[in-house]
Amino acid sequence: MIVVTKANIADTVIDEIVAQIEKAGVEAHVSKGTDRTVIGIIGSASPTLAEHLRQMKGVENVVKISKSYKLASRDFHPDDTIIDIKGVKIGGENLVIMGGPCAVENPEQIDEIARLVKAAGGQVLRGGAFKPRTGPYSFQGVGVEGLKMMAEAGEKHGLLTITEVMTPEYVDICAEYADILQVGTRNMQNFDLLRKLGTIKTPVLLKRGFSSTYDEFLNAAEYILAGGNPNVMLCERGIRTFETYTRNTLDLTAVPVLQSLSHLPVISDPSHGTGRRELVEPMCKASVAAGANGLIVEMHTDPDNSATGDGVQSLFPDQFANLLKDLEKLAPLVGKRFDTEKAPADAFLKWNKF
Amino acid sequence: MIVVTKANIADTVIDEIVAQIEKAGVEAHVSKGTDRTVIGIIGSASPTLAEHLRQMKGVENVVKISKSYKLASRDFHPDDTIIDIKGVKIGGENLVIMGGPCAVENPEQIDEIARLVKAAGGQVLRGGAFKPRTGPYSFQGVGVEGLKMMAEAGEKHGLLTITEVMTPEYVDICAEYADILQVGTRNMQNFDLLRKLGTIKTPVLLKRGFSSTYDEFLNAAEYILAGGNPNVMLCERGIRTFETYTRNTLDLTAVPVLQSLSHLPVISDPSHGTGRRELVEPMCKASVAAGANGLIVEMHTDPDNSATGDGVQSLFPDQFANLLKDLEKLAPLVGKRFDTEKAPADAFLKWNKF
Amino acid sequence: MIVVTKANIADTVIDEIVAQIEKAGVEAHVSKGTDRTVIGIIGSASPTLAEHLRQMKGVENVVKISKSYKLASRDFHPDDTIIDIKGVKIGGENLVIMGGPCAVENPEQIDEIARLVKAAGGQVLRGGAFKPRTGPYSFQGVGVEGLKMMAEAGEKHGLLTITEVMTPEYVDICAEYADILQVGTRNMQNFDLLRKLGTIKTPVLLKRGFSSTYDEFLNAAEYILAGGNPNVMLCERGIRTFETYTRNTLDLTAVPVLQSLSHLPVISDPSHGTGRRELVEPMCKASVAAGANGLIVEMHTDPDNSATGDGVQSLFPDQFANLLKDLEKLAPLVGKRFDTEKAPADAFLKWNKF
Amino acid sequence: MIVVTKANIADTVIDEIVAQIEKAGVEAHVSKGTDRTVIGIIGSASPTLAEHLRQMKGVENVVKISKSYKLASRDFHPDDTIIDIKGVKIGGENLVIMGGPCAVENPEQIDEIARLVKAAGGQVLRGGAFKPRTGPYSFQGVGVEGLKMMAEAGEKHGLLTITEVMTPEYVDICAEYADILQVGTRNMQNFDLLRKLGTIKTPVLLKRGFSSTYDEFLNAAEYILAGGNPNVMLCERGIRTFETYTRNTLDLTAVPVLQSLSHLPVISDPSHGTGRRELVEPMCKASVAAGANGLIVEMHTDPDNSATGDGVQSLFPDQFANLLKDLEKLAPLVGKRFDTEKAPADAFLKWNKF
Repeated sequence: MIVVTKANIADTVIDEIVAQIEKAGVEAHVSKGTDRTVIGIIGSASPTLAEHLRQMKGVENVVKISKSYKLASRDFHPDDTIIDIKGVKIGGENLVIMGGPCAVENPEQIDEIARLVKAAGGQVLRGGAFKPRTGPYSFQGVGVEGLKMMAEAGEKHGLLTITEVMTPEYVDICAEYADILQVGTRNMQNFDLLRKLGTIKTPVLLKRGFSSTYDEFLNAAEYILAGGNPNVMLCERGIRTFETYTRNTLDLTAVPVLQSLSHLPVISDPSHGTGRRELVEPMCKASVAAGANGLIVEMHTDPDNSATGDGVQSLFPDQFANLLKDLEKLAPLVGKRFDTEKAPADAFLKWNKF
Repeated sequence: MIVVTKANIADTVIDEIVAQIEKAGVEAHVSKGTDRTVIGIIGSASPTLAEHLRQMKGVENVVKISKSYKLASRDFHPDDTIIDIKGVKIGGENLVIMGGPCAVENPEQIDEIARLVKAAGGQVLRGGAFKPRTGPYSFQGVGVEGLKMMAEAGEKHGLLTITEVMTPEYVDICAEYADILQVGTRNMQNFDLLRKLGTIKTPVLLKRGFSSTYDEFLNAAEYILAGGNPNVMLCERGIRTFETYTRNTLDLTAVPVLQSLSHLPVISDPSHGTGRRELVEPMCKASVAAGANGLIVEMHTDPDNSATGDGVQSLFPDQFANLLKDLEKLAPLVGKRFDTEKAPADAFLKWNKF
Repeated sequence: MIVVTKANIADTVIDEIVAQIEKAGVEAHVSKGTDRTVIGIIGSASPTLAEHLRQMKGVENVVKISKSYKLASRDFHPDDTIIDIKGVKIGGENLVIMGGPCAVENPEQIDEIARLVKAAGGQVLRGGAFKPRTGPYSFQGVGVEGLKMMAEAGEKHGLLTITEVMTPEYVDICAEYADILQVGTRNMQNFDLLRKLGTIKTPVLLKRGFSSTYDEFLNAAEYILAGGNPNVMLCERGIRTFETYTRNTLDLTAVPVLQSLSHLPVISDPSHGTGRRELVEPMCKASVAAGANGLIVEMHTDPDNSATGDGVQSLFPDQFANLLKDLEKLAPLVGKRFDTEKAPADAFLKWNKF
Repeated sequence: MIVVTKANIADTVIDEIVAQIEKAGVEAHVSKGTDRTVIGIIGSASPTLAEHLRQMKGVENVVKISKSYKLASRDFHPDDTIIDIKGVKIGGENLVIMGGPCAVENPEQIDEIARLVKAAGGQVLRGGAFKPRTGPYSFQGVGVEGLKMMAEAGEKHGLLTITEVMTPEYVDICAEYADILQVGTRNMQNFDLLRKLGTIKTPVLLKRGFSSTYDEFLNAAEYILAGGNPNVMLCERGIRTFETYTRNTLDLTAVPVLQSLSHLPVISDPSHGTGRRELVEPMCKASVAAGANGLIVEMHTDPDNSATGDGVQSLFPDQFANLLKDLEKLAPLVGKRFDTEKAPADAFLKWNKF
């Protein structure tokens, strides 16, 4: 922590600042500049010392130097975290593809989509059983029954499953049925939920709050890690800006930034990041080229008639399959490995419609 | 809902759009323009029709006309909501002042601050027992014991109390001790929490999400209202912008906007909105001049040594008292009434230090 | 300037950083912390040293301490700047009101509006002769003829005049006819224009760029001041945020912030700041309560049929007059003086229509 | 244009709105809904009709349907614009690489960098002779001499040249020396500059304003096109958001969005978009994967000692050359062709230093 003084203040004022620092049990190093004085604080200061100093006479600014997260930081964990779930590896040079509908609707729907995700080469089936909605009158998901349908479809087709959990009391039941638990963008700072997720070992995909900085994002991950669960993936899903043509502004630079600040895998979500089907494919490719460790993509067999509001950003099965074919060629160019067992080429015959 | 087509499309494409609308059981009114055609939809369309239409060939845009909230809207409730809590009226032409520390620390602290809030003319004592924190290693509040200390101080000094509730399972215990429950900015879209608050009658002060639009804010209020709790206050507390000099950008225009869109009382929070003590007083005055129904202001007897990180934005008791004296003169100029019983003028003697 | 190192780096790396600093002819003060080392730089470093250091091995961050503007800073000019134009004082405890149409249309329009601005107690007539427009097909102003019409109307009714100048080559002709030159929000960083304005003495009202920070704003003012023109007013006119209900988000906290960072007068523009007529009046009052040194407000006798696109945010003459009556009472409560000679009360008779 | 009324208004109010529309010489189509009425306007309305309607009693909202730009729109020009400059094709499936220093410093510097850009396979040499600077005390460029140095270096090494022009009066001299003129982000709405650029035929690279929407961006391009210059390239260079870790937030989704809305080539600028050297390479690859028609990249032989402030985002020559090698493999995977004549592999020998 560094204290910067206002210009041309008296020495007695500097002495008072130093006294306050030393009272807090840490050391002060004073560097007098031409106009201003800079006071470095050595030692582990209490979190409120900065605030106290900021209010003192003669203080212009207090700059924090150390990051507030530790377990999430690459400084203290130089190697990539690789999460191994039933043999599927997430992180490092592995590229993982998660696909599926916005919401689980019924057993037939999720089974058919699971079949197509697998056939295309995906490794994880996504689907919401509980849906966060801006207004109270929108479809809120099919609930626990949806978890079961999804678990069954995943098992049948050899896919891991991921689903969103919205509240601490549902963490256990979701963890019973799903392989990965997703924290949605509106819950990134739902600290009770994060704390609860720290008490289990099920891997968590933490979505960036739609207006959260990288620092806040990594602090949210720190809540889970500090609780004892080391299996966290970070997911960039678009931020809110002044531009409203797209649903969000996908911040792809977050991929290399987060990978440099942290050892955790970084997943990109172009479906929510753009909100428009025709933009999903180019932004998936861009995500992989930027170095993402994986993608989470919405795909639906009948988006025009889906029960939920996100059809407009869902790929058709053919589009999804073609995208994965392209990614297979793209991945090695950026040092990524896309391992998958795929179904025969005729699996998509009936989806040849766009 | 209105569908706008792309320029110069074939009539058969328009027919397909109309057919899709009619299939959904609602009527289509076609208006052909020079380049484009506009199709109005009459009747109560399902929430997903918009999405389906948006994906159709020839469709440029789908514009929603009706607001998604009803109970929160002034369209359906033209008169101001006035919430009466133990005789203190909030809303309409009444100006309510809520003051107190960021966090409850101990019985002496909260008792002394309550005495000073009352002496200055405030009607509500604020104080956090549970604190939301960006990082897991910061002070997280004193918990239920804090609720008790605060309730005691409020009762002793004749003040209502308001405290933040962060998770559904704590709603009941918080409602047992506090007169008003606050939903923090990070929880504005914690839908489980909102739903739970809809099941009780305790008044709720709902803070605007720091990146939420007016529409999302009123939809969040709608969750509580739709659950059956009509006692909701809206609180503008600053939004996140590109400017980082202030902690947030206090969006004071929200005050007249929300009052025109909704009948609910609108409270302003210049302490969090600015994050700097020296800006709190002018922005409190600006809030009242803009028509706010009340203020929530941080005040502390010893901000330099408070246990929490928000001392830097807390007023000293003298500043708080002087502010309220000024507001007493300002309120009538904008049609507001500031009713309060105040303590004798010597109550602040020992705080005469700034 | 301060250099912060990465955690746990070798002493030789620190030595290299110090060597680089000393090579630049300035002094380095080293403070070793538990994890990181902080190196303060003493002396006047070249602007590129920071960049060079930022790229060095072992450097985590370089923090600039000194502000890049000097003449605009209150540090070096503690007293308020008061600009005296033909006896009208702007700055300090004076409240100045500028009113008029978005654009000058014809001699009758500007004459009648000037009469009404004066009658209501305004001191400055605003009006655009050259209009910046997002698209090339919109009305672009009446040009030099408009300058003449406005000068005539101002003189006849005893008002100062202010008009926007968009390009360096028009500065001289605009300064010939107007008392104050306005730099629009899109031109805040049109550095050639700013430099040209520094070469004259005509007062300049500099509008904040709609996405510019306080620091960039004051640096733009510094261009004019550094050129030799000390007569600069700062104008907050709303910033761009994610909220689109209002045209901009009026950042009223800018008023006390800019007044603390700078000695220049701060004017508020609620017409552009909100973009909606019904919001102008409350935000004018809020601006004055926040401490603004003046307001610039759009007013039109026939906004429904004005030639320009900003009618929707223009007050009717009666609204303008009533607003100024209210401000007369409000100003003294916040230490401001609103001096004006007003016309008799019947001046607005024919405008009694809303 | 569509008028949406408030809920449940009287028929006479609707009649007044219709009368106003018809008075403007255009047709009104009325569609009555359950709560609200929608009135479509058929014909070419004057730009101010919308504003007049917005102010009428009973009107909730006025929605513009037609885009305000025409020449820039793909609706009226379905094929990609391909700009051919001395045989180098920009647009369509061609990938163009522009590289060079932030600022021209001296003949040796620009000659050596030109040699390296050519050797790596770039087609265009970038370099600023006039530099826009936030503060007046920073390095402002070497001026016309720099234009000459750059033209010479470009000619010698067989590269096109691009340089920034900041003010209308310098357009002609810049066009005399450079093949492409760049409009910087702060000048995107410098309408006099845009108009001047419309009067010549020299190709223009128009950078997106750092807080401009796609619509405003395309309207700015429309100014140049409407003036008669069809040779415009759009450049995404990062937007301003709440995140301050990176200098800007590179909005890569702009690439496919602008390509769908417009026929103009879209270039990406990851150097300014990120502001950090280590992020330039992944974001260049991501830009190409997203479909960009070209890149503009800062490269310097000695960024640590460059005279300008942007060294921190400049690649070293080796990095630049390796990047281009990777892009050569990546381009065909996304349907792009990267044609270039490259120098022998030993050209970079002396730059093998990172």
